Parts: sequence; structure tokens; C-alpha cells
Amino acid sequence: MRDVLVTGIGSTAFGRHAGTPIEVLAVRAAAAALKDGGIAPSEIGALYLGNFVSGLLNGKEVLAGIVAERLGLPNIPCTKVEGACASGGIAFRHAWLAVAFGLCDSALVVGAETMTHASTAQATTALNCALDDEVDGKSGITFPGLFGLAWRAYAEKYGLSRSEVSAVVQKNKGSGVMNPLAQMGAVVSAEEIESSTLIADPLRLFDCCPMSDGAAAVVLTAQAHAANRSVRVLSSVQTRGPAAIGGHKDLTSFEATVLAAARAYEQAGITAAQVDVVELHDCFSIAEIIDSEDLGLVPRGQGARWALEGRTALAGDIAINPSGGLLAKGHPVGATGVGQIYELVLQLRGGHSNQVPNARIGMAHNLGGTGVACTVTLLEGVQ
Amino acid sequence: MRDVLVTGIGSTAFGRHAGTPIEVLAVRAAAAALKDGGIAPSEIGALYLGNFVSGLLNGKEVLAGIVAERLGLPNIPCTKVEGACASGGIAFRHAWLAVAFGLCDSALVVGAETMTHASTAQATTALNCALDDEVDGKSGITFPGLFGLAWRAYAEKYGLSRSEVSAVVQKNKGSGVMNPLAQMGAVVSAEEIESSTLIADPLRLFDCCPMSDGAAAVVLTAQAHAANRSVRVLSSVQTRGPAAIGGHKDLTSFEATVLAAARAYEQAGITAAQVDVVELHDCFSIAEIIDSEDLGLVPRGQGARWALEGRTALAGDIAINPSGGLLAKGHPVGATGVGQIYELVLQLRGGHSNQVPNARIGMAHNLGGTGVACTVTLLEGVQ
Repeated sequence: MRDVLVTGIGSTAFGRHAGTPIEVLAVRAAAAALKDGGIAPSEIGALYLGNFVSGLLNGKEVLAGIVAERLGLPNIPCTKVEGACASGGIAFRHAWLAVAFGLCDSALVVGAETMTHASTAQATTALNCALDDEVDGKSGITFPGLFGLAWRAYAEKYGLSRSEVSAVVQKNKGSGVMNPLAQMGAVVSAEEIESSTLIADPLRLFDCCPMSDGAAAVVLTAQAHAANRSVRVLSSVQTRGPAAIGGHKDLTSFEATVLAAARAYEQAGITAAQVDVVELHDCFSIAEIIDSEDLGLVPRGQGARWALEGRTALAGDIAINPSGGLLAKGHPVGATGVGQIYELVLQLRGGHSNQVPNARIGMAHNLGGTGVACTVTLLEGVQ
Repeated sequence: MRDVLVTGIGSTAFGRHAGTPIEVLAVRAAAAALKDGGIAPSEIGALYLGNFVSGLLNGKEVLAGIVAERLGLPNIPCTKVEGACASGGIAFRHAWLAVAFGLCDSALVVGAETMTHASTAQATTALNCALDDEVDGKSGITFPGLFGLAWRAYAEKYGLSRSEVSAVVQKNKGSGVMNPLAQMGAVVSAEEIESSTLIADPLRLFDCCPMSDGAAAVVLTAQAHAANRSVRVLSSVQTRGPAAIGGHKDLTSFEATVLAAARAYEQAGITAAQVDVVELHDCFSIAEIIDSEDLGLVPRGQGARWALEGRTALAGDIAINPSGGLLAKGHPVGATGVGQIYELVLQLRGGHSNQVPNARIGMAHNLGGTGVACTVTLLEGVQ
């Protein structure tokens, strides 16, 4: 396998882009990434597009081919990949493999989703496509329901106070204030969080990521061909876990994350302690706590405590979600995993609006469905 | 790259499976392929699932993860890929790459689609997801419309009689009679074809493939690990062409097919003349004529003539679609490309119900949308 660098990044803002077709957002992000990397469309040898529900919500498929045409890419393989909320991470991994194995010297990854045009009922129906309908669908559960259960299970196992969870929300919403791409950055008090609408007890509105539109893109290039050598891919791992909620023996941990992280560290030849900055899948506040432990960044049962003590903040032991995460930056599903890479590359280049001092190793964690699909990617700044 | 063998195949019948969930069809085909290949679920290292519109028509995504769980596969990467009608071929190519590059020793490919439960309006809306809605959608064109135009363009350029086109339909419908998996095999007269309902002038009902449900699966294994050495993958190529109809300079040829075929021959180190049996993308009768020329199997402008003269029949110069093709076997979109491989493996093992004598080299051709995505795969019998 060849060394692969992330040489170009681009993104739209995450938020409301009502009236802008999904392929237009995708093309904007991709064109920005090509420009940033100084790569001509003619140099791209493969396109992977991560998207979850454009068929259901937009009546559009073959988006990879459509976006390639708009960009003027050559007659290369253009593939849409889908793994629910992990679609973006899966797209990144496949583009990385294509360059690493020499199928092409440069590949383009795009993640895109539009959801805010849909009604809450339509959007909920779309998101529930990520559940095993024949199993979990029949129970009437939704994703807030799943993470409400996870909160309760975690509280029972380790103890958990509302203010510990609120600390996660305050940190991420607060980071979002400085991120120009973020949908919902805000300085919020614990009181505001704890009096917001109850969604799935004990989850409240501020514990949940918003519905978002957006697109992000990155260009990957073989080291030998890269002009800009700033960020290297150390590893990118994809795993699966149980497709139904009942398949999880313990809702305080996601098997697919644990496994992906272990493999990613092994492939990269590093340990969790070497990671400087993480963008992880905080679709709900409780998810950040669980993810931080599953990724080996925080000891088991201490994720909540660390958040409250500021040890996962910018100046803490490990900087988690300085972008604002899904909670504040937003969660345009198929774009999220690619957006995480975008944020990490800014960090490793040293130019993020919430810069982690001396960040050298970055980690992206993208989790789909009930933990059915997961990707973990490790990046290294090499400037 | 390592040599890769197709060591197991499985398929449901193509046709109406109303009331059977798509993942159940997928699991049936996959379980049959695992059994045929003598491979335990625990040995599978990657799953690629080709599907086009399960989100829109079934409200189901993350099908790759759901199917993996039902099969009891390990916590491996499970990815749904989409490229309209070429989704199955794209899934096959990615599984082949995973084994060829040593990511795993065995990979599973599944293609699945269910459409017959939908109304004609719903199904047409779903199929139109493969058009660039912002461009072609506004004109109101559908896929029968596109291939009706292609027929007219071909007739103008080369001359084309109704009976030449009917010969394609008669051949494929006739082949379907002997294929136990085929949805619509029949001995039909030219009169029946030519008096069937007009769909998109000059295309009539018998010129169009049916709506279908179905699933097909194959197991790919590194040569070193294969017990059954009967069929080797020589090459598998994926290309793109124009995403909008107006992007085609000439509707009598699909650029993505021409390119994919040329690259597939080159990678395999063979010529078109060495191909013994072809399963190609005859979504409409005229498509078989155009495809046969684009693949270099029949001289330009002679596809129709060759069909009428029986030169593309079982005992002809080149056996095209002995399975009955999409016209008679059916077209469960995401399953079609994998089903083509299934048919070819039976041919190269020497056990097809419409066996091509001494078939040694087989070719599969899967075309998506307006020719926006294409795969061509070459297989060799090595028993």
C-alpha cells in the first residue's frame, strides 16, 4: 500500500440550504476541495460519494455520476456508497483504498445530504431507514429512543448526572460559535439545556443534533504525486455491529466502534494516548460520552466526568469535537463523515478556528444506524 | 493483485416475490452462494451489496449490515453501493478488488431489489431517480423514451427493420423458457411482439424488460484459498458516461460501455473474438443491438442483422444472453449485474440450462441510468 495524503478540502456550511439541490451542494464542496488541493478535475481517478437517503428525500440516485459530470471529471469509476450515518466515512475509506492500492493517483470523496426541506415526519421516516425495520421498526423505536435507552443504561452502570451530560452539550455548542460552518453554535446555560423540550426521556432537545443540509469533500493523492504534503492517512477502518437494538448486549458501548478503533490504532502503529484531536459521532450528547470511551480516549465510565471537568475541551487532555460536533456543527448525514476529515485537516494544518495547539494526530469516528456500520480514520500532520 | 475465483453462486428466481422482504431475498441468495462455495460465514471478509432504490420503494437502507447480521457474518466492512442499474456490477467489482488486493481472502457480493409491490407510477418515479432530474427530468422523459429515441437514431444511421429487432426479443424470450430463474420466458411470434402495446414509439411492450423482484449472490475467493477452481476473474472495469441524455453525442452508442469493454479486454489480455458467451444489459431490445456493437462483439451497424441471422444465438458466432437477458429473465435492478455473473459461472462450469458448447470466456455487461455508469467483467473457466 502506498502512502496517501489529504491534499484538498472543501465544504459548504452545514445548516439550512432549502431550495438548493443536493448535487449543487456536492459540486460546491468538491470544486472547493479541488481548488484547495490544486488538482485539476482531469487528474481525478475515482469518485466516492457518501449519501444516505437522497432516493427517499430527493428522488435522486446515481448522484456520484451526476456530480462527476457537473465537475467535468473523466470517465472514471463513480460510486455512491451507503452505510446510514457512516456513509461519509465509508466513502473516504474507499477512496483511500483506491489510491493506496494504486488504482489511481488522486481520488475525490464527497459526502452530501439534504434533509431540512422534509417535514419532521418525512425526516423521521427517512432516518428510520437505518434501523432494521423488521426487528426494531415494529417496536416503534426511533434513534432518540435508542440513545435515551443508552443514557439510562449508562447511568445505571456507571452513575451519571444531568450536569455531566450538559457539559458535553455546552462544550460542543460553545465550540460551534467559532466554527463558520456550524449550524447551531451557541453559548448555552445548563438551565437552558435542562429545560428544553423532552424528546426521549432523559434526552432533551439540546441533547440532539439538528436536521441539516450540507456537503463536504476531500481530495486524496498518492504521496509521490502530492504538491501539498501536510496531512497523511495513517489508517482507515470500517466495521459492522448489530443491525438491531436487541442485538446489543450492552448499550453503554458500541462494538463496531471498539473494534474499528483497535484496528485503526494497530494499522497506524500508534496508541490512543497519541491522538491530539478527535471528531467523533455525537449524534446525541450521551453518544459522545460512550464514543470517547469506546475509542479508548477516556477510561471506561469516566467519559461524563471528563466532560464536566473540561478534560475533553480544547485545552484538556484530549480535544473532542472542537468543530462543535454533530450537536452544533450539524448532521447532514452523508456529509458528516467527510466533514469530520475536513475539520481534522484544518487542525493538522494549524488553521482551525478552534485550533488545538500542536495537533499532530487526528481521529475521525463515524457511526451508522444502531451501530451497524462504523469507520475510524487516523490522520497525521506531516508539515 | 492476486488471482480471484468465483467459488460460490446463488440466486432466487427473478419475478414476483410480493410480500417477501428484500433482505429475505438477499439472504436466500447469499446463503445459497455460501453453500455452493463451501464457505462458512465466518470466512467472509467483506460484503458488498448492490441495490438501487430500496430507500424509496422499501424504506430500507443499511441493507448490507442487515443482511450481514442475518447471515451471521463477522464484524467486517459491509457496504451498499449504488450506480442505478449497474449497482450489481459495481458491487462485484469492489468485492473483487478487496480480494485481489489482499484486504480479505473471501468476499461476498449480493445484489437485491424488489419493485413489483409498487404501482407503475411509483416504480416509474423510482426508475427516474437514475436520470439527472434537473436536466432530463424537466423534459418528462423516461427510460423507455430514451431507448425509443436510440432506436430511431440507430434506424436513421444504419437502417433497422422491425423484424430485426423482433429477432432479439424472440431469441431472449425463447432462451428464458429453459431458464428456471427467468420471469418471462416464452415462445413468441413476431406478430405478437409487433402487436403488443406501444410504449414509447417504436418500442412496444415486448421490447421492454419487466419489473422484477429478486436477489443474486456470488462468493469470491483468493486462488490460494479456493477449493473450487472453476471460474477466474480476468478483469472487472467500471466507467462513467454522460449523466444526461443531452450529453450523448450519438444515441447509437454508449461511451461508458465502449470504454469499459476496451479496458476490460486490455486488463484481461484477450480480444473480443475470444469471448464465448455474454450476458449484456438488454433493458430494451434495441439496447442489446447497441451493446453488442459497443462491446466489440459485432461490427458497427450489424447488431440487428446478426440477431436476425441467428449469429447471436446459442449456436451462433457469439452467444448473447442465453439466460434470457433482462428481457426474459427479468430486471430486479440491483440484482441484475450479480445475476449475470451467476449465469456466466453456470456456463463456464458447463452446467447451464442453455449451455453454450465449450464456453471458456464469459463477459458480463451492466449499464446504469442514461449510460452514466457501466461495468464490464471478464471471467474464464479454468477447470
